[in-house]
Amino acid sequence: MEERLILVSNDDGMHASGIEALIETVRPFGKVLVVAPAEGQSGMSHAITIKVPVRVHKVRNEDEPDVARYICSGTPVDCIKLAISRLANRKPDLIVSGINHGGNSSASIVYSGTMAAAMEGCVNGIPSIGFSLLDISREADFSAVKEIAREIIERVLSEPLPEGVCLNVNVPQVPISEIKGIKICRQTKGFWIEEFEKRTDPNRKDYYWLTGLFQNLEPDATDTDEWALNNDYVSIVPVKIDLTSYDTMKKIKSWETEMVNSLQKSKYL
Amino acid sequence: MEERLILVSNDDGMHASGIEALIETVRPFGKVLVVAPAEGQSGMSHAITIKVPVRVHKVRNEDEPDVARYICSGTPVDCIKLAISRLANRKPDLIVSGINHGGNSSASIVYSGTMAAAMEGCVNGIPSIGFSLLDISREADFSAVKEIAREIIERVLSEPLPEGVCLNVNVPQVPISEIKGIKICRQTKGFWIEEFEKRTDPNRKDYYWLTGLFQNLEPDATDTDEWALNNDYVSIVPVKIDLTSYDTMKKIKSWETEMVNSLQKSKYL
Repeated sequence: MEERLILVSNDDGMHASGIEALIETVRPFGKVLVVAPAEGQSGMSHAITIKVPVRVHKVRNEDEPDVARYICSGTPVDCIKLAISRLANRKPDLIVSGINHGGNSSASIVYSGTMAAAMEGCVNGIPSIGFSLLDISREADFSAVKEIAREIIERVLSEPLPEGVCLNVNVPQVPISEIKGIKICRQTKGFWIEEFEKRTDPNRKDYYWLTGLFQNLEPDATDTDEWALNNDYVSIVPVKIDLTSYDTMKKIKSWETEMVNSLQKSKYL
Repeated sequence: MEERLILVSNDDGMHASGIEALIETVRPFGKVLVVAPAEGQSGMSHAITIKVPVRVHKVRNEDEPDVARYICSGTPVDCIKLAISRLANRKPDLIVSGINHGGNSSASIVYSGTMAAAMEGCVNGIPSIGFSLLDISREADFSAVKEIAREIIERVLSEPLPEGVCLNVNVPQVPISEIKGIKICRQTKGFWIEEFEKRTDPNRKDYYWLTGLFQNLEPDATDTDEWALNNDYVSIVPVKIDLTSYDTMKKIKSWETEMVNSLQKSKYL
């Protein structure tokens, strides 16, 4: 049997300790291809680089014969696309992204470069998982996440996820002995308020920094990722790349004829 | 009754003709607040600006007393966040994004700044619609989309969409008389192949341009947005901001105990 190929990326950049923790975690599972941004790309979501070309540099690492590393000037999604179309000699068997320095629960998933990389893998039909630790510090302790990640990776490799579904894994910032367990959760309904702080520069021009407070719209629900994390559980949200609301499709089906009738009355159609 | 407040944004920038077409379309519905990127931001997806501050400039337009215009240095999502938290004097009644110069059907939705702006509105509990025309030229003819957009906006204002759902509207590149009708669709399964073109710069260094061919994974399905557009129908996909795969939650529920047992055996938990 051919050895597995595991693709690793993140949004904190190649120099983050989170990606080192993830590389260590996946090395026992096969050959490792790392394609990571040159710089931090937090909040880049699913952005792709269109206006400027993308550059790639191979990192010399003779002491790691089972790991190939590339630094890419683009976004996390560029890294995945470039890895799949140009750098990997075959389709990877698994894509892991992270370990993110900071949580990606609730609506954060739409802004997260970590989860965008996983979702891009999923769009390409590759089993994909994003890992995040609720600790934004550079010196975050990834030992708990590494054990949990290994367990989840084993599970995903032995029991494939449904087509078009990847995983969003968040780990609370507590020692592994204090983790209460693992919860399969749904994405919490929430959003941010008061999101821009206004300041004035030395030239008396205003500028704004993105900031804001997360608002959990369902603080009493116990099946959400926010609840799990606030209660020291690991949260695993299975994430779909098909964003269609099938319930709404049924609900607004009658618009098809109603709108065409209306447009015909006004002689547009 | 207070006059409606309509927030308009896009990802092609304030100077695109698509946003002018959209502003004209929404003016009869109420007061208009336009917050658009200074430059084109296609492919920026749901990216937010974190590393640098965001600048905003009011555009002088004395001849348009019902329209307030701001140019923002950030992404489409920054525009929406800034509008809601800083520039609007109250919560907008409707957010419209576009009209995009180019289609956003199938998996394009995850890369699209146009749809990210609409989804950001939806995260904030505001009825939101993204409009795209399948014509990337600067001189695209928006007359058909304007009529269709007016019809859809009227419908959304009179029959509110379910919570957490916005609309992804794509219009084929044909004269309105050739449009066959309107289809409520699901997002087509698809992805891109051969995505990076390699070139060599004058300094003999390699660089890559993002390119690629869209692969429709279900060309025979007739309920998808790709089918609708290829057959000269307008496609409307209702889009959820909750990405949870509820089916998968049930399917992997047993992992909760299985993984904890496994971790306890290895004495981690």
